[in-house]
Parts: sequence; structure tokens; C-alpha cells
Amino acid sequence: MDAADGAGFAQVDHDRAGRCGFPEVVLCEGKRPEDAAAIAVEVLRRAPRVLLTRASPEHADAVRARLPGVVHHERARCLVVDPTPLARIGLIALCAAGTADLPVAEEARVTAETMGAVVEAHYDVGVAGLHRLLGRLDAIRRARVVVAVAGMEGALPSVLGGLVDRPVVAVPTSVGYGVGQGGLAALAAMLSSCAAGVTVVNIDNGFGAGYAAALINRGAGAG
Amino acid sequence: MDAADGAGFAQVDHDRAGRCGFPEVVLCEGKRPEDAAAIAVEVLRRAPRVLLTRASPEHADAVRARLPGVVHHERARCLVVDPTPLARIGLIALCAAGTADLPVAEEARVTAETMGAVVEAHYDVGVAGLHRLLGRLDAIRRARVVVAVAGMEGALPSVLGGLVDRPVVAVPTSVGYGVGQGGLAALAAMLSSCAAGVTVVNIDNGFGAGYAAALINRGAGAG
Amino acid sequence: MDAADGAGFAQVDHDRAGRCGFPEVVLCEGKRPEDAAAIAVEVLRRAPRVLLTRASPEHADAVRARLPGVVHHERARCLVVDPTPLARIGLIALCAAGTADLPVAEEARVTAETMGAVVEAHYDVGVAGLHRLLGRLDAIRRARVVVAVAGMEGALPSVLGGLVDRPVVAVPTSVGYGVGQGGLAALAAMLSSCAAGVTVVNIDNGFGAGYAAALINRGAGAG
Amino acid sequence: MDAADGAGFAQVDHDRAGRCGFPEVVLCEGKRPEDAAAIAVEVLRRAPRVLLTRASPEHADAVRARLPGVVHHERARCLVVDPTPLARIGLIALCAAGTADLPVAEEARVTAETMGAVVEAHYDVGVAGLHRLLGRLDAIRRARVVVAVAGMEGALPSVLGGLVDRPVVAVPTSVGYGVGQGGLAALAAMLSSCAAGVTVVNIDNGFGAGYAAALINRGAGAG
Amino acid sequence: MDAADGAGFAQVDHDRAGRCGFPEVVLCEGKRPEDAAAIAVEVLRRAPRVLLTRASPEHADAVRARLPGVVHHERARCLVVDPTPLARIGLIALCAAGTADLPVAEEARVTAETMGAVVEAHYDVGVAGLHRLLGRLDAIRRARVVVAVAGMEGALPSVLGGLVDRPVVAVPTSVGYGVGQGGLAALAAMLSSCAAGVTVVNIDNGFGAGYAAALINRGAGAG
Amino acid sequence: MDAADGAGFAQVDHDRAGRCGFPEVVLCEGKRPEDAAAIAVEVLRRAPRVLLTRASPEHADAVRARLPGVVHHERARCLVVDPTPLARIGLIALCAAGTADLPVAEEARVTAETMGAVVEAHYDVGVAGLHRLLGRLDAIRRARVVVAVAGMEGALPSVLGGLVDRPVVAVPTSVGYGVGQGGLAALAAMLSSCAAGVTVVNIDNGFGAGYAAALINRGAGAG
Amino acid sequence: MDAADGAGFAQVDHDRAGRCGFPEVVLCEGKRPEDAAAIAVEVLRRAPRVLLTRASPEHADAVRARLPGVVHHERARCLVVDPTPLARIGLIALCAAGTADLPVAEEARVTAETMGAVVEAHYDVGVAGLHRLLGRLDAIRRARVVVAVAGMEGALPSVLGGLVDRPVVAVPTSVGYGVGQGGLAALAAMLSSCAAGVTVVNIDNGFGAGYAAALINRGAGAG
Amino acid sequence: MDAADGAGFAQVDHDRAGRCGFPEVVLCEGKRPEDAAAIAVEVLRRAPRVLLTRASPEHADAVRARLPGVVHHERARCLVVDPTPLARIGLIALCAAGTADLPVAEEARVTAETMGAVVEAHYDVGVAGLHRLLGRLDAIRRARVVVAVAGMEGALPSVLGGLVDRPVVAVPTSVGYGVGQGGLAALAAMLSSCAAGVTVVNIDNGFGAGYAAALINRGAGAG
Repeated sequence: MDAADGAGFAQVDHDRAGRCGFPEVVLCEGKRPEDAAAIAVEVLRRAPRVLLTRASPEHADAVRARLPGVVHHERARCLVVDPTPLARIGLIALCAAGTADLPVAEEARVTAETMGAVVEAHYDVGVAGLHRLLGRLDAIRRARVVVAVAGMEGALPSVLGGLVDRPVVAVPTSVGYGVGQGGLAALAAMLSSCAAGVTVVNIDNGFGAGYAAALINRGAGAG
Repeated sequence: MDAADGAGFAQVDHDRAGRCGFPEVVLCEGKRPEDAAAIAVEVLRRAPRVLLTRASPEHADAVRARLPGVVHHERARCLVVDPTPLARIGLIALCAAGTADLPVAEEARVTAETMGAVVEAHYDVGVAGLHRLLGRLDAIRRARVVVAVAGMEGALPSVLGGLVDRPVVAVPTSVGYGVGQGGLAALAAMLSSCAAGVTVVNIDNGFGAGYAAALINRGAGAG
Repeated sequence: MDAADGAGFAQVDHDRAGRCGFPEVVLCEGKRPEDAAAIAVEVLRRAPRVLLTRASPEHADAVRARLPGVVHHERARCLVVDPTPLARIGLIALCAAGTADLPVAEEARVTAETMGAVVEAHYDVGVAGLHRLLGRLDAIRRARVVVAVAGMEGALPSVLGGLVDRPVVAVPTSVGYGVGQGGLAALAAMLSSCAAGVTVVNIDNGFGAGYAAALINRGAGAG
Repeated sequence: MDAADGAGFAQVDHDRAGRCGFPEVVLCEGKRPEDAAAIAVEVLRRAPRVLLTRASPEHADAVRARLPGVVHHERARCLVVDPTPLARIGLIALCAAGTADLPVAEEARVTAETMGAVVEAHYDVGVAGLHRLLGRLDAIRRARVVVAVAGMEGALPSVLGGLVDRPVVAVPTSVGYGVGQGGLAALAAMLSSCAAGVTVVNIDNGFGAGYAAALINRGAGAG
Repeated sequence: MDAADGAGFAQVDHDRAGRCGFPEVVLCEGKRPEDAAAIAVEVLRRAPRVLLTRASPEHADAVRARLPGVVHHERARCLVVDPTPLARIGLIALCAAGTADLPVAEEARVTAETMGAVVEAHYDVGVAGLHRLLGRLDAIRRARVVVAVAGMEGALPSVLGGLVDRPVVAVPTSVGYGVGQGGLAALAAMLSSCAAGVTVVNIDNGFGAGYAAALINRGAGAG
Repeated sequence: MDAADGAGFAQVDHDRAGRCGFPEVVLCEGKRPEDAAAIAVEVLRRAPRVLLTRASPEHADAVRARLPGVVHHERARCLVVDPTPLARIGLIALCAAGTADLPVAEEARVTAETMGAVVEAHYDVGVAGLHRLLGRLDAIRRARVVVAVAGMEGALPSVLGGLVDRPVVAVPTSVGYGVGQGGLAALAAMLSSCAAGVTVVNIDNGFGAGYAAALINRGAGAG
Repeated sequence: MDAADGAGFAQVDHDRAGRCGFPEVVLCEGKRPEDAAAIAVEVLRRAPRVLLTRASPEHADAVRARLPGVVHHERARCLVVDPTPLARIGLIALCAAGTADLPVAEEARVTAETMGAVVEAHYDVGVAGLHRLLGRLDAIRRARVVVAVAGMEGALPSVLGGLVDRPVVAVPTSVGYGVGQGGLAALAAMLSSCAAGVTVVNIDNGFGAGYAAALINRGAGAG
Repeated sequence: MDAADGAGFAQVDHDRAGRCGFPEVVLCEGKRPEDAAAIAVEVLRRAPRVLLTRASPEHADAVRARLPGVVHHERARCLVVDPTPLARIGLIALCAAGTADLPVAEEARVTAETMGAVVEAHYDVGVAGLHRLLGRLDAIRRARVVVAVAGMEGALPSVLGGLVDRPVVAVPTSVGYGVGQGGLAALAAMLSSCAAGVTVVNIDNGFGAGYAAALINRGAGAG
């Protein structure tokens, strides 16, 4: 349909997902269940695996009707159709401050695992209960990359960044109220972190953090 | 001059500073040196001590010319004229994250000391170098009230609030850049703190934090 | 479960609530009623009392089914399970500007009382009807610490701060509209207060204000 | 010069200043001194009086060279050339919270007086020292309209609005810092005032407040 | 109940509404219908009239059940109980830009009329259809005070301010979207107006504008 | 140097300026005078004309030393080197509200004229003096496209948009103070305009407006 | 009804829609279905065609009951009654970044087509899949004007502005989350575009973009 | 000095820089030249290398006086004292949109090189001149990690993120004006990027981006 594709832009016309074996991704939010399912079916014609994010139970039902092998990660609100999963390599330490941050953390976990990363979760390690975080420190330091998920004052990545010498991908969540409503306080705090090695994704963007962390983790293994 | 003062509003017409022996306070910023000096002289006619904040070297010179006994706290940008200092009681733990936060911390220290508090300073205890803060923890826990001064991501009060069971007065500083410029990231983080017992003053308001901490410290001692 | 806890971080592994006899706190908002109830049951195995905040009627029902002795403070949206209440000491003056501010004020009251403070409420003392506030002034001045709750223009803490010589904990509420929507005008006004001794908590954070005031009140009594 | 003026838009082509005897106004800020002077000279060819606002000493010199009768109100940063001043009628109560607010208040005073209003000033009546304000209340209540100038938390108009039954024109000033920097906290507080009868002008807009108050004052007199 | 009222604050203890014959005002929003009705009944024991704003149909029903003589202004969302209405004097020109601004404009109208003002409405006179506004100019100019209600870009008060020599009370409405969502664009534009004589109230504050305009209108008549 | 340019991306490697005869543009702000001059010399090797914007007098001197034929438009802060000017076609009506808006308007004029447009200026036609704008209406309506430059409340494009049936390119200026400081009030108002046909450029972007208007004007002529 | 219309303002009393044959426009949002239908009927008495925007299915039913010939563009949420459509001329290239942007893009398309423009749609050409955009470049370059619709980071207009030499009308959409929620990130990016020739409309304002583009397109054809 | 360091916190008391051979970093901004030099001397007693950022020429002189072997990277505003540089491994592609972004990009380059990374710079590849970026694509794709530096609309990381399958560290710069002033538009756009694999640092934080990229690059090589 797009004749120009075969010509002058050959170097950009390969799909990244296809090249790397990474899953193609479908954002369910704002799509009707049957449309999301149809897109998933179509994606699987040309790609080995598909990840659907922000999926409601209705999306899960619609996809399962078309693709019975789908796995529904409820807390992560993710659907994965992955007949031949990638081998898991490396190690991502996934830290989350509070229980309200878990849906975002789980979205990061499912994304990174589907991209072939080993993920170890360290939940409920917020800075107001510092001993829990410090008790996990040895395990966290073994990872190739750290994902730090936090709402409210968003201090977790700063504390982690000072304790480990690996890249830290920080994810602010929309958990907060008053001046912190919508996650803006956590986002600003993470961007202002005085610990080096911290980079940040958008509020609640567990998918983006998991994707970036998996890219970093894979690079660390592939050399 | 204000005839009404002697009449119906008797219960509100006493000056708080006079009642408590607290210093009266003169903000130098925006006042000409000779005006600030004149106000200080006038204040001392009816009050035992005066504190001048945000004082430039020129303010110091002008005040010293009129009141030779003035003490100039340079880093705190404060001038104190206090012939009969209050006895120092209690203990305030004054924590600051970075060296750039010291002028604000020192303003808090001078304010609280002039109000009769013992102040112990713990500087350079930012959360990106956590072991320095933890090394001071026993000393901090002995205080009646903690003042926590920090810019950038403003995480110090949250970490402290989780470690001590005393009131924490948090002071965001304007140290920061980008999204944190002007101290707004630190302020938002401190207000969003998930540690209980933390209250917050305006950005760079070392005076306000020292004043509130001294009130809390005095109450704790006076019963 | 956390082996590291017993080792190098012994000095931080004691739970503050346990040390002080303060209640442990469970935020109900965002938790399913049965989950909140289960957490409350678990907390009471190791702590003498528990406070649940932002509780809906459904949360109340679920907790009551497991813990029949629970007290439901409806306007405060709080649940308290406290078989052996702390003795009440000291005095907190709890001032609120308008009737719409009462849920936040009541949350502060229940929190402080559960922490062992005597609380005296002064409601409907907004600055647009100044004589009501002034009529309460003698009573307010007897307190060890003042909590001032207000939405809209948030002027109450400034007026109170000029009239009393005790710490004032200011609580902005989300009562407001237009430029004041969400409570940001009240928050900014309270942080900008030109009265000394005022510190501020996040918007609608009645719990935080009650907690900080109780800490201050207790310190004042314990010496 | 504008031929169309004489035709279809006859009803709008009369200059308001000319109709009312009000001064024409020239904003000096951003104009070269000699240009401001030239404009003032030109205005006086067709109008009985001229008011120049935001005038520097250089503007004053340049205008005086062309119009020796000019009066320079230094603190108000205003220049007035008014050979046959309007008779002063009515009464405007001009209240200001702090000394830093005086330049804005004085701009309002000069504007209103040039427009023929009697203005009575009540300075240093901020809400943190409430007895000074209350001591002036009887005088303030005699006015036809009140102008309330304040920076920081901007609470003065709310308190005044609850005490008088006349229109209150509120003027936020840029006096403030941190979250209140630039006057936004004062502006938001004034717009959010829960006292009825308060209207607001832009930050530091002493001219606008004086102008509106003079219009209201004149209407009250003229019937 | 408030013993202090009779003493030292005698000069502030008179209720403004009682003094002036103005209605007392009850904000229904956030109050249960039966509570609003009970308050209205109570108010009428000591005041000649009551105005209830932001009233839903349920509020209307509840009030009518207790006070059959209530008048329900549906578009204004106001209820008025006024057995002996004030005589109407003066003239307020009430201008509104678009049909979506009418509820706010009507709230201003009902408020001002209940306070004894004659109000003449000029609706649908937005600046994008300038000839409609200009066609009403002679009528508008006859008023003692103008109320200008507009959302979107909020240009109406600026245009009116340049055309009339009476005070203009500007009311931004929350009609708008994108950058203008919530009415902030209109509010900022009105505060930034380069036409003199314009003062502003909070977004959607039709009541506040009507109240201030009625105060101005009354003053103009009473001399 | 960029070998890839000659290959697969042939369709994008032609410089737009070269294709159309439009001037290449050099932003002087932030560049040293001699660097700006050197770039201008280099540009003229491959392009028929160059426009330098935001040029200081020092930039002008440096460019004149290398390119004596340069024309310096001082108020527009523009430099033009254009040995063989384009023929001027069409008509752009350039309207500006106040004298402080003229530098931005002039930048638009010089840009559009260098791109071959006839530009007719209508200055000092702000909405607070409506008769001046209406007096120019017939002339404005003859244009193919209108540029409307305004600061403060930014109402000019809305009024113009309702009076003409041609595209209106709106330019907010940073003329303003308080809530309008930096031009944000004007920008928000222009984007919220309820007049159709109005599009907006960034604050003070006279160049962008002139460029877009010239593109529209040219299209109108070229068919 | 408006007698003044016939007099002095004759030059502004012609309705633009009538003059140009453009449709009159009715915004359905916030109007009851039967009211919207009644207005449409009334408009058609004096105008050849009417466009109703932001129409719900209920609006469609109500209008169809009165005007059976109405066409309902569901995805665009538009209704068009146009018995004698304008001839289509010129060419507008309508580019949209993602599927979530389509309702806004379709609103632009229906608006422009009803105004007599030929519109060619290029959907799903977001910058994260650059080869799709580049594959359409030849087609896009044939247009007289480009409309670029995008949410999220809003980069499409910048990329397009660098590739075509026609005016680009940029439309930010409210597609986004976190810092981009409500479309503010896309709006800011589009206004900050470093590509010349780009002008911007308000968030989600597909109608405004289509209207402006049709004006530009018509001008290009009419000369 | 800190006795506690040797005890319970042994696992956190090792300095990250020491462990990894990474340089210790000194921020010069806000420090006096002689102080910065003294700190650098002290650092080198316990660390093999030191990096000083945001260094003025005066800082350079002061450091050179104490440490003659210092290298001054002027455009990067960095000073490096590194007697035994780390071997350079891997590859970082450093892309910058405009010439005004170069100081930030250079700070990233010096940081990453001092940390032992090979860095290849691709400057002036902004999206408004897309062919320049596409011409560099093959080289960029060979890197282990990409750093993308851009101000204004900040679109470069989104375009790059769609073209490469490596982590992209995005750096917004404060290059911008109007709504983009201070870099907020670029920051918001980068956080809102719809390309996966993009993470973001604070505005102008070239050091942070270089540091994170070097961590990622090293991990990729070390396995």
C-alpha cells in the first residue's frame, strides 16, 4: 500500500520489534475490546509475540476468545501472547515503595520479562521504613539495572542511586494528593535527584520503564 | 497614637515578643541599611533583644555604627543584638543535606539560639550518601525536635521522619535547577512526605523553621 | 523474613509506633474493605492500637466484622480499634474556618486523641466573621499547640499566628473553586504566612496535622 | 487623522478621559524619558490633566524640563501635571498590610486623588498584628469604598471584607518569596476570599485599584 | 452562646447582613437538602431575607417543604425567601458573552436584585460578534456599574472597559477547554486587562460579582 | 561530508529556502557577533538572501564589516542582506495593540517583506480604544491574511477574527505583568479565542508569524 | 430586534458566514438535543448550510427529527445540513499521528470539506514510525496547506514543517498522560517548534484547524 | 570522624566512586574558585580522578594553580584531573539538535569519556532538518546507548527512539522561549514520548545523562 517504503527509506523500514524479537505492544486503553483483539491477531501474523497493556477484564475476555493461549496478568493489567518465550537473561531489580505503586511495578515486570529479562521484585521498600530497603541491598546490588517505582514524595530512586553503582530507571506514580496529586511531586523529585545514574520516565509509565530496563539489561549481557 | 489599643482590644494588644522574651525580628531585605539600623534601635527601647534577618554586609555596618554590641552571623546573614541572652534549654537537631543549603540552615540556627534553644548541627547528611546520615542517628534521636533542610529532591525529611519519633520541621531550599528551580520540587516532595510528623515551611524560610522549632523545643521543656 | 534486620541495622529496626505506643495507621483509600480489615487484624497482633483513615462505610462494616470493638468516627472517616486507650494529656486547640472544613478537622482530632492528646475544638471561626474567632481567643491561648484548618483563602493560620505564642500547625483544605480549586490557594497562603511559628502540612492532611500536633503536645508535657 | 472616526462610530469616538475630567494616563515603564515627556505635553493640549505612572527619577527630570509645574510623588513613582485640580469628594479608605506594600498603595492614592477622591491612608495594618487593624476600624467604616493592599498571604481583604459593608478593592503585591514569589499566593487568596464584596485587580496594579475606587467613590457621590 | 461577643469586640459583633438589610447567604453545594433547608429556616428567625446559591432541584424541594414562599430561579441555581423585598434602585448593566455563561450571569442577577438593585441584562454580546455589543452601548452606558461575564478568552470586560466610564466588575466563567479549561485563560485575561476601571472576581463567582455590584450601585444612589 | 544525503533521502535533501527563494534565517541571540557574521557570509554562498533576527547593534556592526550592503531594521532587531529582493505581492494587514508590541510586530513585517509580501501596518489599535480599530477595518479587510500582535489580555485577535473573513495569525507578546507576566495570559486568551480562523504562534515570535503569513499570502497569489 | 444594527455599525453587521457561503456553526456540547435542533432549523432560515460540532448520538437524533437530510459524521462527532454543497477546490493534507487522534482529525476534515476544500487524509504517520510519514511525503507536498494533528509529545508538526514549504496548522490533542495529560505537552511542543511556518490552535480544536485551513486553502485558489 | 561508619553500616560505607574507578564529581557552581580547588586536591588524595562541572574560567585558573595537570573543556565548562585515564570501551552516540544545545552535550561527552566510554558526537541533527539526522543513522545504530540532547520542542529523542533499538537517554535543554522558556516544553515532550526505550534527565543535566549513559555502556561491555 505504501509504495515508497520499498525504495529510498529501506534503512528505516524494518520494524524494530521484528529485528530484536521484542514483543509488539498494543495499548488497550481507549480501544474497544474486539478492536484490541483484532489488532493482536493481526500483529501475531508478522511477529512472534504481542504484549497488550492497560487491559481491562473485558479486553482480556475479547482477546482470549480469539487467542486462547493469552496470559492475563491482572494486577499489571497486561495480556501476553507468547508461544515461544525468549530465554530469560541478566537481572533487573524491581523496587517499589508502597502497595499502591504495585500495578505500575507489575506492568514494568511483565514488560521486561516478556522481553527476556530476569526480574527480581523488592516491594514495600519505601524510604519511610528504611531498614526494609537496606535489608534488601545486597540482592539489589547484584542486578544489572534497577527500576525504582514510587509515588508521594518519590524519594526512593535518590536513596537507591546513592547505594548502587548501576543505572536506576525511576518511575513516578500518580499515588499522591494535594500538591502531589497526579504524581507531579514524585516526578519533580526524581528529576531533581542529586544521585547520579538516575533517569526518569513519565508518571505511571511502568511499560516504558520495563522496556528501557530490558534494553539496558540485554545490552549488559550481549556485549 | 492608636487610642483604640487601650480599650476594647486589651486582650490582643500585648506584643508576643514582649510577653515571651523572644526577640523582635526585622527583615533587612528591601530596607536601606540606615533604616534597618534605626528600626533596630527603636525596637531595643521596648524589647530586650532584636534579630535582623537577610542582612547584607552594608546592613551589618550600619547597625554596628549604632549598636556596637551587634553580632554578625555572616553565613546566616543575621545580626543579633542581645545584651542578656536567654538561657539555652532543650535540644534541636538541625540537619542539612548539602553545602548549598547551609545559609538557610544557619538562619534557622541563629534564630533558634537567640530564642533560647540548644542547637546541634548535622550538616552534609543528604540521602544520596545515606551512611553519613545513619552515622548521626543516635545524636539526632536525642533532640526534642528536628529541623531538616534540603533542596533538590527534598528527600531528607521523609527519611528522617521514618527514623525519629519527634516532630520534624522541613525546610525546602531554592537549591535546584530545571524542574526543581526555585525549590518547588523540594517543597512538593516535603509536603507529600509519607512519613508522619513532618510539617513544612516556605522555601528558604530558615527563620520560620528556627522560630517554630524553638517554640516546640520550649514547650517540651516548660511542660 | 528479612534476615538483614537483625544485623547491622539494629538501630533502625524498631518500629516507631511500637516504641511510643502510638497507633499504627492504615490508609483505607484504595484498599478493598476486606484487605483493610485483614491488615488491621494483623497490626493488632504486634501493636496495642490501630487507626484506619479515609474509611468508607464499607470499610467500617468489613473491619467491624473482624474487630467488633472498632469505633467508627463517621465525619472524620476514621476507624479506631483501641482496647486500652492512652491517657489524655496536654491540650491541642483545633480551629476550623468553615463547616466544609470539618471532615479534615475531625480527622486531625481523632488522630491526636488516639495518640493521647486532649483536643478542644473551635469550629466555624473563619476570618470573615472575626468576632467569633476573637471570642475564643482566651481558650485557644491555653493550648500547647494550635491546629488551624481552612480552605478558600486560608487566612486563619496567619491571624492565629499573630495572636498566640504557641506553634501553629496549618492544614489547607481542598475547599475552594476557580483559582482556589483543590486547595492550592489556601496552601500557598499558609506557606506565605507573615506570622512566625506557623508550619504547614499537605492539603486535606488532617491525619498529618493531628499526628504532628500530638507529637508536639506530648513533648511539651514530657519535658 | 482617522477619518472614519467622524462617521459611523461617532458614539465611541469621544475619549473617556475628556468626558469625565479624569486624567489621561501615561505608563512610563519602557518609554524613554524624553518620549514620556513629549507625550505628556501632547496630552495636555487636549486634556486638563495628565498622570504618569511607573516613573523613574529620569522620567521626572525629563518631564519637569518640559512641564515645570509637574509634581513628583516619589514613593508612588508617579508624576502629576494638574493645573486645575478636581475638587476632592467622598472618602476612600486605603489600607496596606506592610511597609513593602507602600509603593503600590501610594500609586493607588495618587491615582484616586488626581481623579478627585479624598483618600485616607491606614498603613501597616497587616493581619499578623490584628489589633492595629481593629484600632482603625471605625475610621475605615466611614469610607465609601475600601482599597486593601497586601502581599505574602494576602489575607487583609478577607478580614476587611468581613468587617465593613462597602465594596473592597483588593490589590495583591509582588511582596513574597518561595511559593508566594511574584505575588501569586496573595492574588489567589484574594480571589478565593470567602468575604463578599471583594473584587481584585492584577498584582502590583495600584493604578488600577485607585482608578476603580475613584469611579466607585464618584458614583456614590453623584447619585 | 459566645459570651465574649458582648464584651470587648462590641464594634465587630453586629452582623453585616442585619445592619444593611442585605440577605444572608447560604451556599447549598456540599450541604444535604434538609440541612440547607434547616439553616434557611434558622436564618429567617433573625434576618428579613435569605438567598441560597448553587441549589439543586433537591435543595429547592427541601426548602419549599419548609418555606413555601421560596422562589426558585432555576437557571441561576438560586433560591430566594424574601417576604418583604427591598425597593429596587439604581441600575446595573449585566453583560454576558455567550449562552454557556448564562447560569453565572443569572446568579449575579438574582443576587443583585435581592439586594435591591435594578438589573438590565444584555446577553450574547461576545466580542466575536461586536455589532451586537455596540448596538447595546447606549443602554449599558446608562448604568451605575457594569457586570461583564465571559469565558473562553474573556475579552468582554476589556472592550467594555474602554467604552464606558463606570466601574466594570468582571466575572470569568469556567467555559473553555484546552489551555482555557476551568476558566483560567479568561481570569488571566481579565486581570491583565489594559482598560482601567475593571476589577475581577473568582471564576464562576456570579454571586460575588452581583454582591459587589449591588454594593457599588447602592453607594452611588445613597451618596 | 554527509554522503547519505545524495542517496536514499534525495527527496528531503533540498533546502526549503533554496527551493522557494525564501531567505535563510540566522538567529543572532546567543551567537557572538563575529560568528553570526561568518554564518551570514557562508549562507550567501548558496542562497540569494539572508535574514538575521534578534540582532543587537554589535551584531549589526559585525555583519556590516563583512557585508556592507546589509540593512539594519533597528526596532525589529533584524538584519537583511538581499541584493535582489523578491517582488512584493499580495497584502498582509499587520495589526498591533500597543506601542510596547511594536518590536515584535516589526520583526513580523521585515520577515514577511523579505519573503516578498506587501505589508500594511495598523498600529495602536488595541481593544480598549475600539474606535481606532474600527476606523481601520475597511483597509484590514482588503488583506489576504491578518497578523494580530498583542500583549496584556491579548483580545485583539478575537475581535479581529469576528470582523474579517481571512486567516488571522495571532502573536502574543511578553508585554504584561502579574498574572500576565511573560505573555502567558495573552497566549492563553488567543488560543481560547471564540472567533474562528485564528491560529497562534509562540510568545514574541514575530518572525514565525511573519513567515507563516507570508506563506499564506503567497499561496493566495500563486494559486 | 437590535435597532442599532441598522445605523452606525452597518459595516460590521453583515454576518461573515452569510458573506462567504461558509456554514454557520453550532457547538452542541452543553446544549440539550432539542435546543441544538431548534437552533439549526433557525440558522437554515438565513444561511445555506449549518455545521453542528461535538454532537452526541442524542443530538443527531434530535436534529434528524427536524432536518431529515442531516448527515451524521460519527467519528468526527459532527452533523452537517448542506442541501447545496460548495464545490470542492484546492487541497488540504490532513496528517494525524495516532489512532487516538482521529476524532479531532475527522472534525477538522468535516469542517474543511463543508467549507469547500478537498481534503486528503494521512493517518497513523506519527514520528516514532518515521518511514510511514516519509512514504507519504510526495502526496503531502502537493497540498496548499497542511493540518498536523498529534497528542503525546506533539512532534509531528515540527517534522512536517521541516519537510514542506506550505503553511502547517498544528492541532495538539488531549491524548497523553502524566506530564502530558490534557494535551499540554503537545501544545507546548508545537508552539516551541523550531520549524518555520507552523501555527497552532487550542487542544482538540479540530474545528478551528479545519476552519483556518479552509480559509488558507480558499485564499490560495481565489488569488 | 564519623565513628559509626566503621560499625553497623559497613555495607554502605564504601564510596561508589572508589569502588568503580569512576571520577568523583565536584559541582563548581556556587563555590568559590579557591574552595573548588581545595576540594579537588582533597578528593585526589583518596580517588584516582576528579571531574569538576559548571566551572567558570576563574574556577579553571584556581584549580590549575593547585593541580597543573588539569584539562579545561571550555565549551563543556568542565575540568578533569585524571593522571591515569580509564581505557575507553564501548560506544555512546551523542546526538544534539542545535548549536545552542552544545554546552550541555559537551558536558555529557566529557563526563562519559572520563568514565571510560567511547563517545561519537552527531551535532546539528534537529528534526526540522531531518535528512541530516537520517544521514547519520547507520553510525548511530552502532552505539550501545544513545544520548539525545534538544531544547525547543524536544522532538529528537522521539524520532531517534523510533529508529534505533538501544536505550535512549534524553536531555532537555533550557533553549527555548515563551511557553518553552527554561526547557519545560522540551522536558514534557520527552517524558511524553511515544517511542519506547526513552528515559529522561533534568533540564540541562548533561552530566547526569553522560553518567547514566556511561553506566549503561559499561554494563553492556562487562556483561
